[in-house]
Amino acid sequence: MEPAGVLERYRPLFEPRSIAVVGASDNPFKLGFQSLLAVKTAGFTGDVYPVNPSSEGEIQGLTAYRSISDLPEGIDLFVYAIPDNLIIPAVMESVERGGRVGVIFAGGFRESGEEGVRRQRELVETADKGGMKLIGPNCIGVLNTHSRLNATFAAALGYLQPGTISVVSQSGGVGTCILSQLIDEAVNIGKFVSIGNRANVEFADMVEYLSADPDTSVICLFVEGFDDARDFLMRARIASGRKPVVVCNLGYTEHSSRAALSHTGSMASSEAVYSGAFAQAGILRADDIAQMVMAAKAFSMGAGLKGNGVFISTHTAGPAIVITDYCERRGVRFPELQPERAERIAGFLPPHSNPANPLDMFAFAWTDPSLYLKATDAALGQDDIHCAVAVFQSGTGSGMTFPAREYAEIGRRHDKPVFLCLTAPAIFAQEMVDIQAEGVVTFNRAEKTANALVALTRHYKLTRGGTGEGVSPPS
Amino acid sequence: MEPAGVLERYRPLFEPRSIAVVGASDNPFKLGFQSLLAVKTAGFTGDVYPVNPSSEGEIQGLTAYRSISDLPEGIDLFVYAIPDNLIIPAVMESVERGGRVGVIFAGGFRESGEEGVRRQRELVETADKGGMKLIGPNCIGVLNTHSRLNATFAAALGYLQPGTISVVSQSGGVGTCILSQLIDEAVNIGKFVSIGNRANVEFADMVEYLSADPDTSVICLFVEGFDDARDFLMRARIASGRKPVVVCNLGYTEHSSRAALSHTGSMASSEAVYSGAFAQAGILRADDIAQMVMAAKAFSMGAGLKGNGVFISTHTAGPAIVITDYCERRGVRFPELQPERAERIAGFLPPHSNPANPLDMFAFAWTDPSLYLKATDAALGQDDIHCAVAVFQSGTGSGMTFPAREYAEIGRRHDKPVFLCLTAPAIFAQEMVDIQAEGVVTFNRAEKTANALVALTRHYKLTRGGTGEGVSPPS
Repeated sequence: MEPAGVLERYRPLFEPRSIAVVGASDNPFKLGFQSLLAVKTAGFTGDVYPVNPSSEGEIQGLTAYRSISDLPEGIDLFVYAIPDNLIIPAVMESVERGGRVGVIFAGGFRESGEEGVRRQRELVETADKGGMKLIGPNCIGVLNTHSRLNATFAAALGYLQPGTISVVSQSGGVGTCILSQLIDEAVNIGKFVSIGNRANVEFADMVEYLSADPDTSVICLFVEGFDDARDFLMRARIASGRKPVVVCNLGYTEHSSRAALSHTGSMASSEAVYSGAFAQAGILRADDIAQMVMAAKAFSMGAGLKGNGVFISTHTAGPAIVITDYCERRGVRFPELQPERAERIAGFLPPHSNPANPLDMFAFAWTDPSLYLKATDAALGQDDIHCAVAVFQSGTGSGMTFPAREYAEIGRRHDKPVFLCLTAPAIFAQEMVDIQAEGVVTFNRAEKTANALVALTRHYKLTRGGTGEGVSPPS
Repeated sequence: MEPAGVLERYRPLFEPRSIAVVGASDNPFKLGFQSLLAVKTAGFTGDVYPVNPSSEGEIQGLTAYRSISDLPEGIDLFVYAIPDNLIIPAVMESVERGGRVGVIFAGGFRESGEEGVRRQRELVETADKGGMKLIGPNCIGVLNTHSRLNATFAAALGYLQPGTISVVSQSGGVGTCILSQLIDEAVNIGKFVSIGNRANVEFADMVEYLSADPDTSVICLFVEGFDDARDFLMRARIASGRKPVVVCNLGYTEHSSRAALSHTGSMASSEAVYSGAFAQAGILRADDIAQMVMAAKAFSMGAGLKGNGVFISTHTAGPAIVITDYCERRGVRFPELQPERAERIAGFLPPHSNPANPLDMFAFAWTDPSLYLKATDAALGQDDIHCAVAVFQSGTGSGMTFPAREYAEIGRRHDKPVFLCLTAPAIFAQEMVDIQAEGVVTFNRAEKTANALVALTRHYKLTRGGTGEGVSPPS
């Protein structure tokens, strides 16, 4: 599909001009209360229509409607905060009023046995007949920070600032876990879609949309299974040619697979089958949610790699060892410094420090962090070094700070990404925020840094394609 | 050694009555400034003696001494914030003044080649002759929250509240990473020792001390290598009979091993050799720092396991799937519910929910969390279920809260630990703090929860010893 076509098709979902909240309520223990609250508090500027048969005049201060058929024609987005048995009639009425897109929170469809499967089929037929697209059922909704749209039932999500990382998750619960981790990493989210049972909107559709979406720089997917894996891979391959696509899917054990089946009604995916197919489609497969989050953060800051050679400098060996140990087992290289560069670095190193990679400059570099700048500048000039990592213990209030601006500038001059492992408790998150604002990709744990490097290296190997270096067999 | 003996031997280190800071300074860019500041601001109530040859009267408001030989006799603890070449003469003078224990920050000893090895040998001889024990060199010092002792150069550590998790780390940098993660988990630290090059205080000594220490409930070790592994294992075996001993050691790759050698002068440990020996000594080997931290948190809250059967309940399947998937691959079991218990649970479950393990109660359980209490109470009565995990999405300000007190009470009644996976960003940490205060071991990530369960299960298998269930071969 044409990029413009897919953008237009899902405009009513991501940039609606009007929203109806069906089941809206004044009772804070109802989903319909949380849902309307979420829509309102996010700062949405279009029209909002609460619908509830027992309403009298107003709900949460807005003019209320007693039925969908009382609504004006052509409302873009219907949010259904009603029980499962009321969904199909409501969708039918919405179609009649010209509804374009719907979000269905309720479970009780194909994840819940035969009767549910039948009911979901009927739901899809109803929607398809009227040309209506449905997110869910059995989901927690949709968020677009760029249009102040919060069509979930968690008002807190409406306060997120706009970013370029977009997330599509089959599981709403895992989806919020992913959002939590992104928030902890001090990076911003663009769009979030919890697609649940995928009535008639599939991963493939969302990937195609996000691939065309100018506000999205990286696409993250949490997948439990597909109905049409071939279609997904075909469209994901096109998307991965434009921007990074990162997938986390679980290879299920006995109990987790049972839980998945009674979850969003998907057959568990086979690990072996997917890993090869994903690679062929240029999709980066993350080992776990944390790795997906760290990779997305790096990609969103433009820190993709053009090779697998890393230079590390530190004032404290331990965390650098943790990083190199983890990375070397997973295909990341730490090239020797060329003799002339080693000599240049030796010229300013403190006593007992050797000009090696990893480069340990001891506590001297903590009190004089300009040593990091000199070392990084020398190392990044080397062809087989593709990025730099500095390990630095946060001053945590004692007044020491890392020279983030100058460090980022060195990276830009060499056109290679620079990372900082700023070991610190989460309470000192502001230091990370400030450093990232200068363009340095910063993690507060050695493990997170290592995880990101491994993912970025794998992505480089996936995408270098025709260069013949390792991926394709020699012809 | 008698418990009383080892406690008395290291009393001057952990509960000093007086501290001399050699190299103390008024210049905030000197280690001797940070070091004296750390000692003072932690709230230490004994005598503090700044020493600096160029001092005139006072340093940081305290009466200063121009040399160690000017100090009164019998100072307990000497903190050396001076360069490597001044260390040996300073230790010699300290011994003459009756110094009992020293902490040496400087590098430049056996981690830095032949000359350094020779210098460290001379240092040890000097100290041993005077019966002085040395922490370091090449370390970041010692912390005891119970005696308000902060003999590091990070003043921020002095604000930590007393706890019962004690940490010994070869690497100071990794040590502070461990502390950061413990702080993030909202648990408190007892003692922290960065032992660096281990002049004449070994892991074995610290393990023996902490094993006898009534303020320590769990011992965490970050190890790069031993000089006398046999001695360590012998003393660790005794310790592990008294309280959990958790070790994280890295199996080194080419570069990380090179970094380790030029780090604290230890030969890298061989993974295969250690893993068997650790198990025989009853030591729990953690896969990584995060797992060590999560296990330590659980142990410190009394949540050791007496079996490997786990019951999970959730209102959102995804995170429960992440936990079961990770755990089942690593020896944790999720037993079927006995028919009569399943029936009892079915009696109060919402529509479409099946009385299984994992138990998914959908969003109903988020709006009515008392469902967790009923389900957990029913499940914990089953013999092959040894703990309960509830998965719950934080209300993040929207007013919902998990019934922590009642949940903890159910655990106590069954004498089985209860865990909560409260998925939330770190900014909502206060909710975790409040819940933990009720006695519920709480993690804000599915991965952390899973990591803890795996570690606790391994520990149960290590320590069940004579029960014949799996570990010992049948006789």
